[in-house]
Amino acid sequence: MAEWQEISGGVTAPKGYRAAGIKAGFKPSGLPDLALILSDVEAIAAGVFTTSQVRAACVDYCRQNLQAKHGARAILCNAGQANAATGEQGVVDAEESAQLLANELNIPPESILLASTGVIGQRMKMEAMRSGMPQLVADLSATGSDAAAQAIVTTDLVTKSIALETIIGDRPVRIGGISKGSGMIHPNMATMLAFVTTDAAVSPHLWQEMLSRAADRSFNAITVDGDTSTNDCLIALANGQSRTHAITEKGRDADKLEAMLTAVCQHLAKAIARDGEGATCLLEVQVTGAQNEKSARQIAKTIVGSSLVKSAIFGHDPNWGRIAAAAGRAGVQFDQENLRIQLGDFLLMENGQPLQFDRGAASAYLKQASEGAYLKEDTVLISVSIGNGHGSGIAWGCDLSYDYVKINAEYTT
Amino acid sequence: MAEWQEISGGVTAPKGYRAAGIKAGFKPSGLPDLALILSDVEAIAAGVFTTSQVRAACVDYCRQNLQAKHGARAILCNAGQANAATGEQGVVDAEESAQLLANELNIPPESILLASTGVIGQRMKMEAMRSGMPQLVADLSATGSDAAAQAIVTTDLVTKSIALETIIGDRPVRIGGISKGSGMIHPNMATMLAFVTTDAAVSPHLWQEMLSRAADRSFNAITVDGDTSTNDCLIALANGQSRTHAITEKGRDADKLEAMLTAVCQHLAKAIARDGEGATCLLEVQVTGAQNEKSARQIAKTIVGSSLVKSAIFGHDPNWGRIAAAAGRAGVQFDQENLRIQLGDFLLMENGQPLQFDRGAASAYLKQASEGAYLKEDTVLISVSIGNGHGSGIAWGCDLSYDYVKINAEYTT
Repeated sequence: MAEWQEISGGVTAPKGYRAAGIKAGFKPSGLPDLALILSDVEAIAAGVFTTSQVRAACVDYCRQNLQAKHGARAILCNAGQANAATGEQGVVDAEESAQLLANELNIPPESILLASTGVIGQRMKMEAMRSGMPQLVADLSATGSDAAAQAIVTTDLVTKSIALETIIGDRPVRIGGISKGSGMIHPNMATMLAFVTTDAAVSPHLWQEMLSRAADRSFNAITVDGDTSTNDCLIALANGQSRTHAITEKGRDADKLEAMLTAVCQHLAKAIARDGEGATCLLEVQVTGAQNEKSARQIAKTIVGSSLVKSAIFGHDPNWGRIAAAAGRAGVQFDQENLRIQLGDFLLMENGQPLQFDRGAASAYLKQASEGAYLKEDTVLISVSIGNGHGSGIAWGCDLSYDYVKINAEYTT
Repeated sequence: MAEWQEISGGVTAPKGYRAAGIKAGFKPSGLPDLALILSDVEAIAAGVFTTSQVRAACVDYCRQNLQAKHGARAILCNAGQANAATGEQGVVDAEESAQLLANELNIPPESILLASTGVIGQRMKMEAMRSGMPQLVADLSATGSDAAAQAIVTTDLVTKSIALETIIGDRPVRIGGISKGSGMIHPNMATMLAFVTTDAAVSPHLWQEMLSRAADRSFNAITVDGDTSTNDCLIALANGQSRTHAITEKGRDADKLEAMLTAVCQHLAKAIARDGEGATCLLEVQVTGAQNEKSARQIAKTIVGSSLVKSAIFGHDPNWGRIAAAAGRAGVQFDQENLRIQLGDFLLMENGQPLQFDRGAASAYLKQASEGAYLKEDTVLISVSIGNGHGSGIAWGCDLSYDYVKINAEYTT
């Protein structure tokens, strides 16, 4: 029996949350571009942000807010301009945005967290922010998650949403999430954003710890192309409205909540990898036998990020050599005589030696995955073992197609 | 006045070297595939090898030999099979190859260094090695550098060769080199090899130090795709046949020799980057203002290795946002308000703020470079400054074209 079940409702599935998404005028396309998630009460808030040295104003704003207090009522997000590389004016615009929402909701601006996505180097259209705010707040609803999910996307082909429910004590507890991010169709807008809500009650320190680990096992384990952007952020609110007892220390309930949080983050992260530019399949690399989880994930990420592996998958080529070469250069020490590589059910290499295998059938496995894109069967699984250690890790990515280069070369800023 | 001049002759330009390259039968194509470089006397030998955990037998063989003694007479290299992922048999084959040549030359096998390039997971064709050896030695000549350069290539479009001459004391001293390596046309054969010879006299320790630094500033500063392969190696011989005094400590002569060695390595490395699969231009990224050279080069390599920057260059798009984002995620701390980005003569960003610039003219600059491929004007220059530090570094790469994906997806092992 599963420990939890999937339910509908996204970030508004947990109790005590409302959300909205409207067309405010940030996007030239006229599509929805301003989103709000609001908790009825002050929630515990945790965040994980881009490690880039080139950061948007909203990232620094959230970091400062969360350092001052580990709580928030609302997350405000615009799509269209990233408010990165905008200098002092960007900071002023971010602060004004929070103040506008604070006035409308009659809450302190310190209770508001900000996120932006869109073109970097452009100021936010503050007129859209000012004129859109009343309608945004008026539109808040307990079924508003999908509207919010639509208003945070930029070049995404699909919106991303998930919600899970379990029982803690004898009461239902829910976690929901939405995210945005695709490959690098328009790389100046390639930000990865995710917002998670829960009605569990949890202590701030524990919630931040859980979120950091969940991020490492999900968003930090996907590679579409390159690395962290100027605006990447993951924010998670916990408002306690399930009325269950507060989780304040490690134990069974904490483990359960963290497992659900990780599942939500992994679902959202894999949806981003699957939405990679030109991708025909999801690529999952599992590494076992390492000294620790970090080393295993490092190898998994190197393989899943290798242009050579990615183009081999696109070409339906069961190329063990490219996988072995990527594993070898990942910066993790191992004895090549212990290397074992499996593609789906096909064992390609063992004890560091290539094996005979049915090349046609292995190629057909890859073909089937790419033809099943956006279906359940779209996942290509590469399993690698490097030794007898207990560390294991997973990373996700997508294949590299003609369209990736085509679109990235033809897009002009 | 330049400190040295370019001359012809490659690895046989320095005194006391002969070389040969023959068709031995390793390559299915029947093209030349076995090369030998021989010094008349035992030479000081230094080497830099792949850091991959998955290594060819010849790499371990050379490492052990150079640890035991810092000298060698000969470098033997086959092209066609990489002798990587071949286990114990690969070690036996490497040792037999050295013994075969030792017998033919009547020198100890410990004086021979080995290199291989080609398909990984395949044993070397030892019959070709055995039958080719007498002719290889018979063909040795003081003008054999080009033949050797041709016999070490795999998917390269052009051979790579250089030689420089200077005066030390009052006698001519020469350095020559040949290399192979292209993009990742057939990535199982994407090894980068370089062999350098000089007739200078230099102490073993100093020569190894010079070579390691030169490698960091050349071969370790190019990025075509991914990273080190299973077989990468750079070997440099110094046989003292110029009859100049021995360079045994730091000083003017040592600096001059190292500068020439670095120039030879940079020429060979840039030739490899220029020969990248589908490349239409050479991309040079100069980073200044960092705390140290290593940090500067790390940022330069991240920019030059970014698929997004590379495809923007191919699309003639002066996209400062992609350059800034790559700099920001390079893992080097800097204040984004100090970021300055220049493309050719066009200043795109200063003090972390995007500037107005003539977009059409900047695009024309990129177009001109790609149309000048394989000519002197084929270089696109990106200059980045991150602060007031004294560290500077350069990296080289190439653009990312449709053909890269096409060929890598369609190539089947």
